[in-house]
Amino acid sequence: MVAPTNIFANIPAALADEQFTALWSTTTLRVERIISHGQASPPGFWCDQEHAEWVLVLQGAAVLAFEGDVDPVRLKRGDFLYIPPHARHRVEWTDPDQVTVWLAIHHGASLDQHQALTDVAPT
Amino acid sequence: MVAPTNIFANIPAALADEQFTALWSTTTLRVERIISHGQASPPGFWCDQEHAEWVLVLQGAAVLAFEGDVDPVRLKRGDFLYIPPHARHRVEWTDPDQVTVWLAIHHGASLDQHQALTDVAPT
Repeated sequence: MVAPTNIFANIPAALADEQFTALWSTTTLRVERIISHGQASPPGFWCDQEHAEWVLVLQGAAVLAFEGDVDPVRLKRGDFLYIPPHARHRVEWTDPDQVTVWLAIHHGASLDQHQALTDVAPT
Repeated sequence: MVAPTNIFANIPAALADEQFTALWSTTTLRVERIISHGQASPPGFWCDQEHAEWVLVLQGAAVLAFEGDVDPVRLKRGDFLYIPPHARHRVEWTDPDQVTVWLAIHHGASLDQHQALTDVAPT
């Protein structure tokens, strides 16, 4: 018997840090749910990943900044974005008044060795 | 300048067949949007893929059946499901009264050679 899981289930009411939940993981792929509630990257922090990432905002709102770009990228429900390897970026803002639910797809040959770094760095 | 795309944009008002749009594609990964509007798999058809698939219903409702399972799987907004390689399955039903928007992630070593089959078979 196959049973689905709902991606909007089990969302914590309050979060000190962003929450990362792996939904599917192989040596070259990690699909994860990210829950944000007002969190942003630490001041001066840029996320620099060897692998590519694709993010989709399922609920809520966020702002991503890319190094060298004047204008940050505003994301609302349904917006998705491809982040190439080594495109240095940071989460400038997530909506403090509602939970933001992201689907992130990490994909690349170097995924294994960078999983720990990726999971820890953005919180 | 990085600009997001919205996954709910450009949804056709009427569809003779399901619509498949690749959002990110490599030799071992294909992320696609699928739009259904009442379509189902042809009678007797079972989808049998060498690669694994992960599906998430972003909007709408659908029913998947897996060969050998008595009960089909009902999927509503937010429900996701992992489909292992060679898990024979079919789309029993999609809601005829609203558009169903799926996110599908296909992943596996054999993706390239099966892309054409996968794209064509379910319509």
